[in-house]
Amino acid sequence: MTERLRKLVRDIPDFPSPGILFRDVTPLLRDPEALRESIRLMADGVSAFRPDVVLGIESRGFLFGVPVADRLGVGFVPARKPGKLPWRVHQQAYGLEYGADILELHVDAVGPGDRVVIVDDVLATGGTARAACSLVEMSGATVAGVVVLVELVGLEGRSTIRADVVSVLTY
Amino acid sequence: MTERLRKLVRDIPDFPSPGILFRDVTPLLRDPEALRESIRLMADGVSAFRPDVVLGIESRGFLFGVPVADRLGVGFVPARKPGKLPWRVHQQAYGLEYGADILELHVDAVGPGDRVVIVDDVLATGGTARAACSLVEMSGATVAGVVVLVELVGLEGRSTIRADVVSVLTY
Repeated sequence: MTERLRKLVRDIPDFPSPGILFRDVTPLLRDPEALRESIRLMADGVSAFRPDVVLGIESRGFLFGVPVADRLGVGFVPARKPGKLPWRVHQQAYGLEYGADILELHVDAVGPGDRVVIVDDVLATGGTARAACSLVEMSGATVAGVVVLVELVGLEGRSTIRADVVSVLTY
Repeated sequence: MTERLRKLVRDIPDFPSPGILFRDVTPLLRDPEALRESIRLMADGVSAFRPDVVLGIESRGFLFGVPVADRLGVGFVPARKPGKLPWRVHQQAYGLEYGADILELHVDAVGPGDRVVIVDDVLATGGTARAACSLVEMSGATVAGVVVLVELVGLEGRSTIRADVVSVLTY
C-alpha cells in the first residue's frame, strides 16, 4: 500500500526555489483510499507515542493533524506563522530548507503534564519540527514524538530532533 | 451540545485589525469531545450535499475539511494563498472582512462531473467562499454546497453565495 501512496506524491522540481525538489501531496489527498490510508498510518504512529494532544504545523500539518486527532479522540493545537494566532503566544525562530521564519503557539495551548505529538506533512532539514519542539518545551509540556507523512532522509532532519520521529514514506 | 461548542469559541476584539471581533476556534480544537462533535456536525452537513470531494480553504478550512473528508470517505483538495500550490493553478481575487487576497486551486484538482463541497471555519462577508466557488466553476465542476463551523449572520455573507450554505454555530 505504501507503494501506491508513494506514486501519489508528485515531484515538482525547483519549487519553491531553484534546486529544491518539492514533494506535492495534493494527488494523495485527492484519492479517497490513499487519504484514509495515510491518515490511518499516521494515526498508528501517533498512537504509539500515547499522546494527550496533537500539534499540527501550519499549513500542511493541519491537513493530517486534525484527522489523526479525530481518529484517536484527543485534542488538536495549531502552531502557526507569525501574526495568525489571535491570543498570547510563545515564539520560536527557525531556518528551513528554503528561507527562514517564525512559528508561534498559544501560551494556553499545552502545559505541564501534556504529552504532545507533533504532526507535519514533510520532514526536510527539520527546522520547523525543531521549532515546534521548542514551543512545546517553552510551554512546560513534553514532546512525545514527531510523525510525518514524508521524510527526505538525505537531509538528515531526524538526527537534529530531540524526540523520536516516525515517517510513513521515505525518499 | 452546540451551546457547549459555542462556549469554546473565544472572542478576540480588534483582531486582526481594529473593529474586527475575531472568533477564535482554538479552544474548541483543544477539547477532544468538542472537536469530534464539531467534525461530526460538519460532516452531517457536507454529507447531505452528496459530495464527490471536499474543498478546504487555507488555512483554517484545512482543519475541518480533511477530517470531514476522512469520515465521509471522499477525497480532499486545498484552495491556497498565492504561490503555495506547486502545480498549474486557477486564480481568483477576492475581498474579505479585513483586506484583499488571491485564492488558487490546482487545475487538476476537480473537473466536470465532480460535486464539490466547500469547507471553512468561519463565514463572514463571504468573499473567500465566493472565490472558492469561482475556482470550482472555472474547473468545470459543480459547487454542491458550502459548510462552515461559524457563521457571522450580521455580515450577510450567505446571501452573496450562489450555493446552499450550512453552518453549525451562528453569531
